[in-house]
Amino acid sequence: MKKIINKTDDIIEEMLSGLSASYPQLIHRVEDSRVIAKNDHKKQVALVSGGGSGHEPSHAGFVGDGMLSAAVAGDVFTSPTPDQIQIAMHEADQGEGVLLIVKNYTGDNLNFEMAQDLAEMDGIQSEIVVVDDDIAVEDSEFTAGKRGVAGTILVHKILGDAARNGASLDELKQLGDKVVKKMKTIGLALRAATVPEVGKPGFELAEDEIEYGVGIHGEAGYRREKIKPSRELAQELTSKILADYGTNPKKVGVLVNGMGGTPLMEQFIFMNDVLNLLKEQDIEVTFHKVGNYMTSLDMEGVSLTLIDLTDESIKEALESEVTTISW
Amino acid sequence: MKKIINKTDDIIEEMLSGLSASYPQLIHRVEDSRVIAKNDHKKQVALVSGGGSGHEPSHAGFVGDGMLSAAVAGDVFTSPTPDQIQIAMHEADQGEGVLLIVKNYTGDNLNFEMAQDLAEMDGIQSEIVVVDDDIAVEDSEFTAGKRGVAGTILVHKILGDAARNGASLDELKQLGDKVVKKMKTIGLALRAATVPEVGKPGFELAEDEIEYGVGIHGEAGYRREKIKPSRELAQELTSKILADYGTNPKKVGVLVNGMGGTPLMEQFIFMNDVLNLLKEQDIEVTFHKVGNYMTSLDMEGVSLTLIDLTDESIKEALESEVTTISW
Repeated sequence: MKKIINKTDDIIEEMLSGLSASYPQLIHRVEDSRVIAKNDHKKQVALVSGGGSGHEPSHAGFVGDGMLSAAVAGDVFTSPTPDQIQIAMHEADQGEGVLLIVKNYTGDNLNFEMAQDLAEMDGIQSEIVVVDDDIAVEDSEFTAGKRGVAGTILVHKILGDAARNGASLDELKQLGDKVVKKMKTIGLALRAATVPEVGKPGFELAEDEIEYGVGIHGEAGYRREKIKPSRELAQELTSKILADYGTNPKKVGVLVNGMGGTPLMEQFIFMNDVLNLLKEQDIEVTFHKVGNYMTSLDMEGVSLTLIDLTDESIKEALESEVTTISW
Repeated sequence: MKKIINKTDDIIEEMLSGLSASYPQLIHRVEDSRVIAKNDHKKQVALVSGGGSGHEPSHAGFVGDGMLSAAVAGDVFTSPTPDQIQIAMHEADQGEGVLLIVKNYTGDNLNFEMAQDLAEMDGIQSEIVVVDDDIAVEDSEFTAGKRGVAGTILVHKILGDAARNGASLDELKQLGDKVVKKMKTIGLALRAATVPEVGKPGFELAEDEIEYGVGIHGEAGYRREKIKPSRELAQELTSKILADYGTNPKKVGVLVNGMGGTPLMEQFIFMNDVLNLLKEQDIEVTFHKVGNYMTSLDMEGVSLTLIDLTDESIKEALESEVTTISW
């Protein structure tokens, strides 16, 4: 394993230190914690998210005006602990309550719920929106039900916009649950991620193999086969997602997400193929996003997320201006 | 070789197509060309840059208000042709002249100069700023003198700000030459890039080896050795750069640039180590930037750029607001 790190035990500490030192104008690290928070809190419902590390720029990269109030980082691919989530909630809360955005993994669900209980004892009201956009598999290594993956950043954006515009905690919870149902994601990998503590890739793919439906922690997907042209990879993912919708949505947003080790060049080529396929199906694309947003360490691969944007207000929320590191 | 592509001959075409389709609100592709231009040109000196593809988001990601007017893409690691550069100059020129920002490679210098001659015959005035920030080696495979690498994006930003504020072509040329002298960059690689047409990495590094001083086209560096902790890698690059300055600058900007295949987590850890080293030297860091800006396909590694910011006006130019895909 070759990585630009010092001791594996110090990875999270040093990463958060480097991150917070690099954007002092936008965010700060809450002292002695794993929490990155925005500098200027406004009177609104606070949005807090987080999860295991290794998915950078998620979630700290989305802290800022119009998105998250704070993000909390666990160890690599490991849920943050309840006390750390509680610190984030205290930091973020402006007396209007806290909406927690959680990717659907057993550990995250447990810990965020526990934090919710702890915060309630301190008088902080909260709700949880669970994101489970990955349609590749039902149940897997770390999840009951579907996994939460790249679509989570769209939830940050849409709810962040609504919160900034004065939505209440209940309204945000309802909007969040509604938005999650509109999104579908599948990924594919050319190379699995190497967790620093483990020192070798989570699974081995041959020199000419790819795997469809992988998660963002190296969870197994649904099929392994020889690499194909981008067009055929796009066809596989797009058709699986559209089949899951049943009826094609009329207007969609498209997020092509790089897994961490995949060049932007390949992501744009893949996006081009996805757009061609959607055009053939007369589906209008009204929002586009391409880049490394929900990564899996050094995994090579991409995920495709579609979100039904027939409701124009959601498109507007995706397009509004924000001040974050990475949106 | 595993890559998300279709035919290797179609890579640039499909990448530009995917890119331009993804950001219609900001940029467009000039018809039948390799040129990405901003949608709304203002009356100012136009800035045009470009170079071989494979360095995404450079340079198209920096087209927009306050940065480049247009960017032109060559084949992978190959200079754009004079006629394509000429198209970019025509598209960008608003009657105030065109400043060309060129990374110092023999092919790029020749082709941009030829384009300059062609444009002059059409009455377009232009100047060239050559960026040669890589202090790792003098002369190499594709260059006479030092290579132009990640610092180029800082030149885009500083000159883009000045151009927007009304600087003349001569003033921009002078400012550009001055800024280039203030910047120094060195990179290191954990894995070389694989050019699609070649199908295997440009050079082989053993499972525990890294190479210092590599270029962004897989050019050889100055030393190969066993991987070390990030802190020691940072020490090597930082001390080389400071030695080249001779006298330490009092205030600097720091750019940690990912080479395409290196996770943000590692980039932040590396940044943390660089910042600690600069602190020990009492050098104040007044500008920070971390991310994949001048990549080399799927190369794993980082480069470190320092820019002397004792002159506050340059810092202000780096910090001004821009509307681009990737700054």
